Amino acid sequence: MKNFMDENFLLKNETAVSLYQHIKDLPIIDYHCHLDAAAIAKNSRFRNITELWLGGDHYKWRLMRINGVPESHITGDAPDPEKFAAFCATLENAIGNPVFHWAHLELKKYFGFDGAITKENAAQIYALCNSQIEAEDFTVHGLLKKSRVEWLATTDDPADSLEFHMQIKNDNAAGVPKVLPTFRPGVIFEPQNPKFGAYVKKLGEAAGIHIHDWDSLRAALSQRLDFFAEAGCVIADHSLEDVFYLPDAKEKFIDGYRTRLLSWLGGEYHKRGWVMQLHMGAQRNNNARMKRLAGADTGFDCMSDADYSAALAKILDDMENRDALPRTILYGLNPSSDDMLAVLAACFAGRGIRGRIQWGCPWWFNDNKNGIQKHLQTLSTHGLISTFIGMLTDSRSFTAYTRHEYFRRILANQLGTWAEDGEFPHDMERLCKIAADISYFNVKDYFKV
Amino acid sequence: MKNFMDENFLLKNETAVSLYQHIKDLPIIDYHCHLDAAAIAKNSRFRNITELWLGGDHYKWRLMRINGVPESHITGDAPDPEKFAAFCATLENAIGNPVFHWAHLELKKYFGFDGAITKENAAQIYALCNSQIEAEDFTVHGLLKKSRVEWLATTDDPADSLEFHMQIKNDNAAGVPKVLPTFRPGVIFEPQNPKFGAYVKKLGEAAGIHIHDWDSLRAALSQRLDFFAEAGCVIADHSLEDVFYLPDAKEKFIDGYRTRLLSWLGGEYHKRGWVMQLHMGAQRNNNARMKRLAGADTGFDCMSDADYSAALAKILDDMENRDALPRTILYGLNPSSDDMLAVLAACFAGRGIRGRIQWGCPWWFNDNKNGIQKHLQTLSTHGLISTFIGMLTDSRSFTAYTRHEYFRRILANQLGTWAEDGEFPHDMERLCKIAADISYFNVKDYFKV
Amino acid sequence: MKNFMDENFLLKNETAVSLYQHIKDLPIIDYHCHLDAAAIAKNSRFRNITELWLGGDHYKWRLMRINGVPESHITGDAPDPEKFAAFCATLENAIGNPVFHWAHLELKKYFGFDGAITKENAAQIYALCNSQIEAEDFTVHGLLKKSRVEWLATTDDPADSLEFHMQIKNDNAAGVPKVLPTFRPGVIFEPQNPKFGAYVKKLGEAAGIHIHDWDSLRAALSQRLDFFAEAGCVIADHSLEDVFYLPDAKEKFIDGYRTRLLSWLGGEYHKRGWVMQLHMGAQRNNNARMKRLAGADTGFDCMSDADYSAALAKILDDMENRDALPRTILYGLNPSSDDMLAVLAACFAGRGIRGRIQWGCPWWFNDNKNGIQKHLQTLSTHGLISTFIGMLTDSRSFTAYTRHEYFRRILANQLGTWAEDGEFPHDMERLCKIAADISYFNVKDYFKV
Repeated sequence: MKNFMDENFLLKNETAVSLYQHIKDLPIIDYHCHLDAAAIAKNSRFRNITELWLGGDHYKWRLMRINGVPESHITGDAPDPEKFAAFCATLENAIGNPVFHWAHLELKKYFGFDGAITKENAAQIYALCNSQIEAEDFTVHGLLKKSRVEWLATTDDPADSLEFHMQIKNDNAAGVPKVLPTFRPGVIFEPQNPKFGAYVKKLGEAAGIHIHDWDSLRAALSQRLDFFAEAGCVIADHSLEDVFYLPDAKEKFIDGYRTRLLSWLGGEYHKRGWVMQLHMGAQRNNNARMKRLAGADTGFDCMSDADYSAALAKILDDMENRDALPRTILYGLNPSSDDMLAVLAACFAGRGIRGRIQWGCPWWFNDNKNGIQKHLQTLSTHGLISTFIGMLTDSRSFTAYTRHEYFRRILANQLGTWAEDGEFPHDMERLCKIAADISYFNVKDYFKV
Repeated sequence: MKNFMDENFLLKNETAVSLYQHIKDLPIIDYHCHLDAAAIAKNSRFRNITELWLGGDHYKWRLMRINGVPESHITGDAPDPEKFAAFCATLENAIGNPVFHWAHLELKKYFGFDGAITKENAAQIYALCNSQIEAEDFTVHGLLKKSRVEWLATTDDPADSLEFHMQIKNDNAAGVPKVLPTFRPGVIFEPQNPKFGAYVKKLGEAAGIHIHDWDSLRAALSQRLDFFAEAGCVIADHSLEDVFYLPDAKEKFIDGYRTRLLSWLGGEYHKRGWVMQLHMGAQRNNNARMKRLAGADTGFDCMSDADYSAALAKILDDMENRDALPRTILYGLNPSSDDMLAVLAACFAGRGIRGRIQWGCPWWFNDNKNGIQKHLQTLSTHGLISTFIGMLTDSRSFTAYTRHEYFRRILANQLGTWAEDGEFPHDMERLCKIAADISYFNVKDYFKV
Repeated sequence: MKNFMDENFLLKNETAVSLYQHIKDLPIIDYHCHLDAAAIAKNSRFRNITELWLGGDHYKWRLMRINGVPESHITGDAPDPEKFAAFCATLENAIGNPVFHWAHLELKKYFGFDGAITKENAAQIYALCNSQIEAEDFTVHGLLKKSRVEWLATTDDPADSLEFHMQIKNDNAAGVPKVLPTFRPGVIFEPQNPKFGAYVKKLGEAAGIHIHDWDSLRAALSQRLDFFAEAGCVIADHSLEDVFYLPDAKEKFIDGYRTRLLSWLGGEYHKRGWVMQLHMGAQRNNNARMKRLAGADTGFDCMSDADYSAALAKILDDMENRDALPRTILYGLNPSSDDMLAVLAACFAGRGIRGRIQWGCPWWFNDNKNGIQKHLQTLSTHGLISTFIGMLTDSRSFTAYTRHEYFRRILANQLGTWAEDGEFPHDMERLCKIAADISYFNVKDYFKV
């Protein structure tokens, strides 16, 4: 029997333990997250552990709702200690859930507490954490340093001023990682959205160009692309809730517009040497009542089971066929699309670029022990896992970096298991290199920051 | 090497063994089955093991057909000993199949035989079982008592008289579990069905209301809902072979009608404090020839791979948005929808109700070792498994209760494995509570019978 | 820790080791492959290991592209030693990939080399293999004999002259397996294909019948069916990239035509006692640029996620309903359809034919350790694995027969694990019979060659 979440957590054989030792202290490159650039610029502090943990974490909120906690104690105005107690009373029964593991990894790494969270010790943990949160170095900068973050990429609207990114860059504070913006168009792909008109106006103002037709739209976007590039941007991101490919559709005007826009943007990314991320398979805002009460991104999204392999292949082929396909990361939310995406990605491998099209890391509902294991196995089955760029956080939290620890442990265990089972040579030098490449070096090469 | 199906069957570590000891004798609440209320009311007996095992079990029939057994020995008129022999000759090679495990668990529990079924000992087992079937207490009531069934819910048409349910209630026989009806509308959702007209008439007669429009339909259904409630009903059930959501469709009249009807019924269930079950993903009666020869539900159904996440979210949101969503159990037949359903269910968690929307138990083609393990892991990954209401039989057989044993063994093994692997504290009190809640106490709380 | 790919590779317990010993030397029946009949007729030799391994293997090409190898060293005109070196430099990092295992199994079986392939020893292996390739018995016939192939079925167009099949038959060379053609209609199902007209003409010429309507088309195909039957054909094959069922469609003329044609052909196969193979779920030629540069079947296919359970059930039912359904093998490419297909196949079991409808073996992107394990588990869960006809190669390579070794190892391990876990009686006689039936005897019975 293994001890509860000790130093060998998730490591089931000696090779795995050795491999994890080799990679555990490598820096972190967080190439996709939702951290608040303003908070980094201002080097914010935290009110208490409730704000830090429960201020914006829809993963935790969902668990609490399932457990019957009233909304007042989730996103409502209950006192902070009570919210934290309600969370601990939920978590103590969350056997098999990734939040259970993340919370304990965070408590150990950032607060030095290595017991189990229970309803009974909620108050004790609350006090312990808050006393440390008051310490001088418990700031956004302190947490990023402690997490060994080399650089990170936030997620930003093309109309954004990027003022906080500029400020961070100019401050150039010691030990603070580079903070790059990510170009993430959203509303501009939604002509049916009531906010479309206002958004087009805003985008035009940001670019200093009056947008009134296809040419002026592209001119304005080009300006924003250059502006982002100047701020260090090397990554674009799209959320394709439905994947479309209808380049000549007359009867489906919107899909035709979206296809042309994405295809053109892909070429722009490619020209600039950027990486394009495509996030697929989300089905958002399923609960209208809670969207009214708590807003978007509060725990009411799920995964879609609509098919999209044909449309996705066509939009990528459209770019590739005119040499306009950038290095691309494909993320699928529904694990039933895992094999399809891993295989489809390889259909656009080539042009001598190692790891050119990535089947992206286990995202959101896949960011858990089984999801990561399945990702590693599926990717190795259908491709070359040694070229994988590995994990990101996708998080709004400054203590979410233990997810890299979680990933690295599962990675070390998988590689070690293959070697110990005689399915791969027990050559520690090679195994260590593969593990380190996936943990850090591949991503460093891929984005060329 | 473990012994063949001994007391530690499926239990792979000591913690699992302890947990199973803790839950194995808990009562059974069988909240969804297809048992025949008349047989319970009459306390029926069985002709022999062929009738008991092969009289209506399409799981067994399928295996026999795959093995090349002629239909005469499956649903035909071959002599009972020959049918049983043909089944044994099939089963002895059914390695890895749940029917193999169920049959042996049943032989052990209800007949005290703990060897392996083979072609060679078919006659011996036939004689052994039949001698016991002749014993005085080998009746429907005897089997239900031996199975520790606390209450069970049959599956009934809204036009049903429920006479046998009344009779069982009035008899109030010692040791016999409560037998509740389940309100399961079927044909009323199928205006395209040639039997629709006759059914509407029948339903109207049962309700004492002439159904001629939307209002009178609802009035008649309301009468039946109240009538069922009086008979103890707390559960409704729908089989959504296709999931629809088209509230305002003009061109698709039928879908519009079905959407409005389901949405309205949901509200009625909610008003009465009932639970709504939605069974999704079945594709029925695929073999027209065998439907003619053997009828429906004889082993010719399969699972659909059509997508439905968007429609399902919308129909639930439609109810939730006007505070008309009852506690709901979502069952998916195609395991490729497992993650989607587990995640979607949580989008309607809330209102302070613990375990409000359940991703239902591994149903039909998922009711097997791998299916149950995957269900437990997927549910724990995406939700709070400690709030899960656990297993049911979905069966027509009075000896199917060993499926609860099967489930509880797999549950104990999964929880024990997590604890022994150091992924959860080895706190036996908490582990026992989680195991017992999932096996019995959650379902008891959920239905409030 | 197990040694690297030694004699107990993939065998994790003693029962598995014993079972594998029992089946490892059984003959191979390769009922579906893409071997070149001309090469067999001519008893071709190989230029070197680069031609043998990299001459036509899109599995290996994909890995090399992912690793950033330029196309010149994949399908281009780089020198053979350089191509081989580029492959070895790719393979040494292909942890978890089936090509890694296949390559090492082939090196051991056909070349007696049992080390690990690395960049460093590429030149050494290149020389070793080439020296053996020069040996007198290193021919197509020699490889087939060494592989213990009893008979094999190539894949052939209905208009094919089958001259090489005839020649092989007439030569009747000692130790050379029977080589049967497979009737695989393709373009005739594609009226939208620009080549359709020319193909109809060619087919008519082959049959000696002018095809100008539905009746003459059927007459010509009948002639070809008879011609193939005379050449020993017992198997037909269809690639249903989309599964269609629209027998009476007026507005969708093409689907109506294809439905009627497939349904009619099924009846013709049935009449002749043939087996019908249906390959589903492929999405081909996704990369237009590479199709121009390298042609079809060069590593740019993927799997589709479109749904097809309803259409597939209907086309099978259409045949079954008029007693025109042949024994059929259903192959799915996307593993998300695994459970659906395993269950659907059983809906057409019956008529007293053991293993009548097979859910076909793990094909293409599923032909790997996890895919085979999942196939065995899914099949046993939903059916009778003891009736399974087992593995094929689907390959263009004369050294691909180690895939049968791979399959048999995984099969032995799965059966042994069930027995050692106490989930099936530890009866070696029965276990050996099941293993041998799946490896060889079932397929022998099924095709009645």
